[in-house]
Amino acid sequence: MKIAILGAGNVGGALGKLWAGRGHEVRFGVPEPKSEKVTALLASTGGKAQAGSNREAAAASEVVVLSVPWPAAEKAIRDCGDLASKVVIDCTNPLRSDLTGLVLGHTTSAAEQVAAWSGAKVVKAFNTIGAGNYGNAEFAGTRADGFYCGDDAAAKGKVKPLIADIGLNPVDVGPLRNARLLEPLAMLWIDLAINQKWGPNHAFMLLRR
Amino acid sequence: MKIAILGAGNVGGALGKLWAGRGHEVRFGVPEPKSEKVTALLASTGGKAQAGSNREAAAASEVVVLSVPWPAAEKAIRDCGDLASKVVIDCTNPLRSDLTGLVLGHTTSAAEQVAAWSGAKVVKAFNTIGAGNYGNAEFAGTRADGFYCGDDAAAKGKVKPLIADIGLNPVDVGPLRNARLLEPLAMLWIDLAINQKWGPNHAFMLLRR
Repeated sequence: MKIAILGAGNVGGALGKLWAGRGHEVRFGVPEPKSEKVTALLASTGGKAQAGSNREAAAASEVVVLSVPWPAAEKAIRDCGDLASKVVIDCTNPLRSDLTGLVLGHTTSAAEQVAAWSGAKVVKAFNTIGAGNYGNAEFAGTRADGFYCGDDAAAKGKVKPLIADIGLNPVDVGPLRNARLLEPLAMLWIDLAINQKWGPNHAFMLLRR
Repeated sequence: MKIAILGAGNVGGALGKLWAGRGHEVRFGVPEPKSEKVTALLASTGGKAQAGSNREAAAASEVVVLSVPWPAAEKAIRDCGDLASKVVIDCTNPLRSDLTGLVLGHTTSAAEQVAAWSGAKVVKAFNTIGAGNYGNAEFAGTRADGFYCGDDAAAKGKVKPLIADIGLNPVDVGPLRNARLLEPLAMLWIDLAINQKWGPNHAFMLLRR
């Protein structure tokens, strides 16, 4: 799959490396495609990924992954130009800078904001577990869940195997408005990791019978 | 332990029955202690539980469990009189009547409202899993988690074994303000059960390594 990744930080970098290793055509959208950091990231993919502007990366891809910090999200989306025909995967969490909570929620969500800005088919995914667990999501023999939600069944069908490629068990939790519930779940993960000092080695899963 | 349970519906009834069976001294606080429904509930405990007004139940108990529907919560708490010396376990979820979301959240939570009304040491617990799973919380050999949060360590110490008594694995997720995260988690459980038609046989757990 042709995948643009807006942002090359912990989340985008880890996703891109894993997807490139799986044979996907990965293009990072970054402000400085020739920077030392981006050059090192591309080298770490064995030359299997490229980098360009947000607009270049998005134009060449069918799936656009939003993985910049929340305050940079709107600009990154608007940089891309027309996204109406794209699937956008929103990985963001709208965190307060002091990590005491979310800057928005309850009556909306980051994912719904991204949908409004982009006009794209948005799927929320990859936000409820720390990026350090991507590609390393077995916990005592049990695979952690990768929760995702969205309103477009075809878009979710494209995202589901991308979640499995990251080593997570894809769990569809319904419409995009349920991002109002997945973003607080992510905040709980983060609060436990940072504020409650658990560190990053935990993950949510849904038991079923 | 002497436990008052405000409300004798699905949640309170199930908790009271299980705790009475474990030897706790259970008193239901209900508007009509002699009603057919309450009489049947008391009979189902083998006569090990009692019923009275909210005030009578609370006065005789060290732990007061709030398990009425959210619109009835404030009155139930105020009925009890002075709760400053009590531990209050808040099991509620502030659901919209059409189950499309919560009536409050993000900047507050039901649990924080209950703390403001009662002046008690409040612990949020039992809200993130359907009551039908109380006493029946093994999922393919794995015990579901019973998440709880609160600001008072001694109160949490009293609640933890009560969670284990219900068959859940107690998981302390920090301060009471994290009810802002547990209530959306409960909403996700409910949305999956009802709106996404999963039914009640699922439960969240935290994988760790």
